[in-house]
Amino acid sequence: MKLKMMYSFLNSDLNIIEKELKKAIQSKSPLLRQASLHLLQAGGKRIRPVFVLLAGRFGQYDIHVLKNVAVALELIHTASLVHDDVIDDAELRRGELTVKAKWDNRIAMYTGDYIFARSLELMTVIDNVQAHKILSNTIVEVCIGEIEQIKDKYKFDQNLRTYLRRIKRKTALLIAVSCQLGAIAAGVEEEIHKKIYKFGYFVGMAFQITDDVLDFTGTEKELGKPAGGDLLQGNITLPVLFARENPSIRAEIEKVHEKMTKKEINQVISLIKTSDAIEKSLKISDRYLTKALAVLEELPPNKAKKTLRDIAKFIGRRKY
Amino acid sequence: MKLKMMYSFLNSDLNIIEKELKKAIQSKSPLLRQASLHLLQAGGKRIRPVFVLLAGRFGQYDIHVLKNVAVALELIHTASLVHDDVIDDAELRRGELTVKAKWDNRIAMYTGDYIFARSLELMTVIDNVQAHKILSNTIVEVCIGEIEQIKDKYKFDQNLRTYLRRIKRKTALLIAVSCQLGAIAAGVEEEIHKKIYKFGYFVGMAFQITDDVLDFTGTEKELGKPAGGDLLQGNITLPVLFARENPSIRAEIEKVHEKMTKKEINQVISLIKTSDAIEKSLKISDRYLTKALAVLEELPPNKAKKTLRDIAKFIGRRKY
Repeated sequence: MKLKMMYSFLNSDLNIIEKELKKAIQSKSPLLRQASLHLLQAGGKRIRPVFVLLAGRFGQYDIHVLKNVAVALELIHTASLVHDDVIDDAELRRGELTVKAKWDNRIAMYTGDYIFARSLELMTVIDNVQAHKILSNTIVEVCIGEIEQIKDKYKFDQNLRTYLRRIKRKTALLIAVSCQLGAIAAGVEEEIHKKIYKFGYFVGMAFQITDDVLDFTGTEKELGKPAGGDLLQGNITLPVLFARENPSIRAEIEKVHEKMTKKEINQVISLIKTSDAIEKSLKISDRYLTKALAVLEELPPNKAKKTLRDIAKFIGRRKY
Repeated sequence: MKLKMMYSFLNSDLNIIEKELKKAIQSKSPLLRQASLHLLQAGGKRIRPVFVLLAGRFGQYDIHVLKNVAVALELIHTASLVHDDVIDDAELRRGELTVKAKWDNRIAMYTGDYIFARSLELMTVIDNVQAHKILSNTIVEVCIGEIEQIKDKYKFDQNLRTYLRRIKRKTALLIAVSCQLGAIAAGVEEEIHKKIYKFGYFVGMAFQITDDVLDFTGTEKELGKPAGGDLLQGNITLPVLFARENPSIRAEIEKVHEKMTKKEINQVISLIKTSDAIEKSLKISDRYLTKALAVLEELPPNKAKKTLRDIAKFIGRRKY
């Protein structure tokens, strides 16, 4: 089953969110409007809005409240992608030129700032100080994660803990908080929204590990960007950590640098793919998914629960 | 009288804010801590915290509430400076190397993001949705201003209105909001805090115009960076707009480009200084100050009012 089929009952609400997303980044500045729309229109899975809406089903589901949280979280994610592409000097994202490639780094920086600020504006409809504390704390952690990622580039001797902490900040926290804020905005009690947070956290960890695996196993068409990009940019992901355990592969990995040719990097990718690194990485991802499903069982039954289960299972075997 | 002397009665509270500022950007990431502290320790006038505290005097003055607002606003300002220096490719700020010069653009971008996110975290102590709406809306406007500034670089044919709108977004709004949020955090009623906002807006406009004049008339020592930097970077400020009215000066101004030598740019600066552009610019600044003082008269009497009057008057004749 395709991901979108799993939550087709949310379609009309997701259409509302899609419209609100475009509305949210309308700006008096044409340059800002174009740069902001550019990435948004290239698509994306909108997985954070989906989590917001599904979590909202555990309480008083009101799309006119939840849409603001959903749009805010998707925009925060979008803003971080725009800034990421500056850091990674990336040319392509979702099969389209990045903002920094189509315009420049300076435009990308302020476009990210703008999208981020707009998301904050939308969040102010939520009259709940706890929600704002959770969100701002998450953003702080995301920034720390980004800086640590820069610092750890091409550092081949990092350990599993460093990696897991980094993907927590980079991905899992924002997914966890999408779940939690959706629940809070629907008036769900604390005991429950903390469990929904945990579910999101575990799913987010699995999601990022799968993403890091796909960077090796996916095709350029599936990924919307060349494979092996992470490694080429010096981002040491889980498959690299495992492949590194083999001394001869390790020697090749440590030779990786930014200016490598496509042929050279493809050889290293092949080595990693033929090792047991992919399998080992997916096992760790599975472990997080098992935890996610266990937390889910503790939640009250409803339609969202089945869908969250399907999504979690999908993440373990996704191809894009 | 020196600026700091005017509000010496705030000294002990400003010391608290100085400590809180340092505390606020402590981070588990050493790189982030160093980069954030770097700019903060280079000083700065802390004019936004001063406005927050003075505005707080119109209501229930509680330093333990106000300090969070003051620190948040100074951090937002600091974050925007870090991002500004990336845009302007600036090497020096407050007489020290900029974050982007000491580290690089990528570190500067995320340091800015981090400081900004920390400021939001601090603001969540204010349990007032209106305050959050005001702040996030201001940040959106500041971002639009920044993008417009990039777009308008080296555009020598812009008019007074474009310039005024840009400095409103760049400077005046955040000062206005410092005044307003200080008042709101002290429980000041709407009629009054809107007037305090207006005062801040007029003072902010005058402040930025004076700043733009000083970029021509100040020495490198006074400014902490070389004079004429704005023009060299293509930022068309008020003195340039006035000087441009003289066709022969206009011809020289339009030759300005990024790679000009110091000698060449100094010749253009001299031309602008010897024209009536400086005097005309200061007249516009004075007009805003007169408006600021008029609004101030409508506010209830207290010690803060006299100080705000002194500060407004100081801004008109400041040298740094």
